[in-house]
Amino acid sequence: MKFTAHVNVMPLKELLDPQGKAVTESLHNLGLTQIDNVRIGKHITLLIEAASEEEAKAKTEEACKKLLANQVMESFDFTLTANA
Amino acid sequence: MKFTAHVNVMPLKELLDPQGKAVTESLHNLGLTQIDNVRIGKHITLLIEAASEEEAKAKTEEACKKLLANQVMESFDFTLTANA
Repeated sequence: MKFTAHVNVMPLKELLDPQGKAVTESLHNLGLTQIDNVRIGKHITLLIEAASEEEAKAKTEEACKKLLANQVMESFDFTLTANA
Repeated sequence: MKFTAHVNVMPLKELLDPQGKAVTESLHNLGLTQIDNVRIGKHITLLIEAASEEEAKAKTEEACKKLLANQVMESFDFTLTANA
C-alpha cells in the first residue's frame, strides 16, 4: 500500500524566527498591516510504501527524527493519507 | 476577530525539486528505502485581524500573491481557523 505523508516542520514557539519577523515587516510595508506574527517552517510531502498505516506512521516518524527536523530547534507534526 | 492562516507553498509538480531529490537519496542512505518522491516547500502561519472570514481569506491570498509565493515556480493553498 502507498501512503502520502504531509509533514510540517516549524521553529519552536519559544524561539525567535528571524525569517518570519522579516516577512511580517515586509507585509506591513506592502500595506498588509492586519497581518502579524508570521512564522515560517517547512512543508514536506513524501510517498511511503508500507503494509499498514502503523508502519507508514513509524517510517515517517523515523524520517522526521533522523533527518527532516532538528528537534533542538524545531517541532514536527504530520498527517497520512492512503493513496488509491 | 482574529484568524490563524496555515499556508503551504510548494514547488509546482511539473518542476524538478533538487532539495527534495537530495533528501530522498539521504533517506535511502539512512536505510529508509520505502520512502520516495520527497518534495519540500514552505509552511507559513500568520495571524490576521479581520472583520470576517471572507476578509481574512482575501488578505491571506493577497499576502501569498504579493510576497509569500512565487507563482511562476510555486503553488499555494491555505486553511483559516478562527481564534477564540
